[in-house]
Amino acid sequence: MLFLLMLTGVEPEPWVAGFRRALPELEIRVWPDPGPPEAVAYALLWLQPHGLLGRFTGLKAVFSFGAGVDRILADPSIRPDIPIVRLIDPGLTTGMVEYVVHRVLHYHRRIPDYEAMQRRHDWRELEQPLPEDRTIGFLGLGVLGTACAQALAGLGFDVAGWSRTPKRLPGIECLHGETGFDALLARSDIVVALLPSTAETRGILGARAFARMKQGARFINVGRGSLVVDDDLLAALDRGHLAGATLDVFQVEPLAADHRFWSHPLVSVTPHVAAYSQPKTVVRTVSEQIRGFEAGRGLPHVVDRARGY
Amino acid sequence: MLFLLMLTGVEPEPWVAGFRRALPELEIRVWPDPGPPEAVAYALLWLQPHGLLGRFTGLKAVFSFGAGVDRILADPSIRPDIPIVRLIDPGLTTGMVEYVVHRVLHYHRRIPDYEAMQRRHDWRELEQPLPEDRTIGFLGLGVLGTACAQALAGLGFDVAGWSRTPKRLPGIECLHGETGFDALLARSDIVVALLPSTAETRGILGARAFARMKQGARFINVGRGSLVVDDDLLAALDRGHLAGATLDVFQVEPLAADHRFWSHPLVSVTPHVAAYSQPKTVVRTVSEQIRGFEAGRGLPHVVDRARGY
Repeated sequence: MLFLLMLTGVEPEPWVAGFRRALPELEIRVWPDPGPPEAVAYALLWLQPHGLLGRFTGLKAVFSFGAGVDRILADPSIRPDIPIVRLIDPGLTTGMVEYVVHRVLHYHRRIPDYEAMQRRHDWRELEQPLPEDRTIGFLGLGVLGTACAQALAGLGFDVAGWSRTPKRLPGIECLHGETGFDALLARSDIVVALLPSTAETRGILGARAFARMKQGARFINVGRGSLVVDDDLLAALDRGHLAGATLDVFQVEPLAADHRFWSHPLVSVTPHVAAYSQPKTVVRTVSEQIRGFEAGRGLPHVVDRARGY
Repeated sequence: MLFLLMLTGVEPEPWVAGFRRALPELEIRVWPDPGPPEAVAYALLWLQPHGLLGRFTGLKAVFSFGAGVDRILADPSIRPDIPIVRLIDPGLTTGMVEYVVHRVLHYHRRIPDYEAMQRRHDWRELEQPLPEDRTIGFLGLGVLGTACAQALAGLGFDVAGWSRTPKRLPGIECLHGETGFDALLARSDIVVALLPSTAETRGILGARAFARMKQGARFINVGRGSLVVDDDLLAALDRGHLAGATLDVFQVEPLAADHRFWSHPLVSVTPHVAAYSQPKTVVRTVSEQIRGFEAGRGLPHVVDRARGY
């Protein structure tokens, strides 16, 4: 029985070593050397080339290397009966919380202003609101959105969140539906997008949504690039309606070298690194899921293909 | 009975309004208009001109507007029997935790590297250690140091701290004494200085201490400028031993416009704003202390003049 790693752009060595130690009962293979195709029982996927998975007739389940599964769902060669497991990993959550907390504090504590003042050798204390007087609004209250929202509430921020279906979280105002979406945008000083990419969410952050945000609001996208209409975001920044954007995900990745996001003075770009998958935690998570499945237990976090996540 | 505010460089209006509401039984005055000197019972001090407090013969206690009291102690006109109260304020702690958490995450998540890559339009994922594999070392485990240390332990970092006297804090390795000082420096990836300025701590971070820090370590000073020997810090950065420094406090404030810290590529300067005093919380804290003292209760956080904090 084979476990195939198809990890584009990832150094396979630590993953192979980790899975060999954690799952000695399976043979670990690395794409493009899958061994006998019919022996592949499991696959771990990151940006896998599309159209190849149909050859693996003995496939039992595939695992996503990231929290988002839109790229896996777009592969027509995964049979509809094969469970697709989203990665819900403590390491992934740690990374996302670090990234979002850092960036919210960066805006909250006016670091871009102080950096500009350092360049001018300008010593001056700027007005500083309390965290309770800043509203951080989350679009998406899944595992990652909830963890980030709770971390910021713990730091004293006023936190609100919006989700497709109604939710209840202590200390966080939870909104849903179309009126809830508009209300969240209108009351947030910093909007954090952590939605999956689905038919319903693609382009959800366009001119209409940006116009509903507060004058001077900041926008952080750590969900998916497809949520955003790039030109509408640039227009909202250029006309001074939004005061800054931090983008970790993009319509096309890697971000094209001539894209305006790279050089816009109000945009911070990172190369899809907000959450990081670490062998230390991911190997343990996926190995336990495979071993449980082989022992007859169900798989957790299986994607609902109709819903798209 | 008068309460005199002597707040150099601070807009007095919100403070006067806040104290008038909170302490209607006292007359609130703002320096340089103290009213009858013998009627001044309490004073709130921030960078007060030295030598003036001897005139207030009816003085019962003075309150520091910040966490550090070295500038107040240096004023020879405060009689030795007058209690000096350090500000231990939830708002001050909030600000310090925000600042330190932000800056540790900034280094941990390699934001300076990603910012340089954005300037080159360079899309590349950098190696990212887990927080448990980063040691954050605190010099000083007072109210502020402890709060910051606990916040970072909560984010999964390996946290150690050093204090003058032995301490015990859950989840934090507590060191003390001279060998503990060297051990803390040697094992920390990021060193955070949050010590008071006393005869024992002045210049404690000089060539000897920087040499004991790890190659590539970062240094954050949010304690007092007098802890650091500026030229030794610059030398440690220039020879590549330290990889970065974040400085919020300085030997002389405001920092001189021609000081090398402003323009050094590895130094981040902020103008003594890490912790911020907000009328909302400080007025409540100080008013409750004054009212309790008038009712015959003791004052909390009174400075030990021999110890210096």
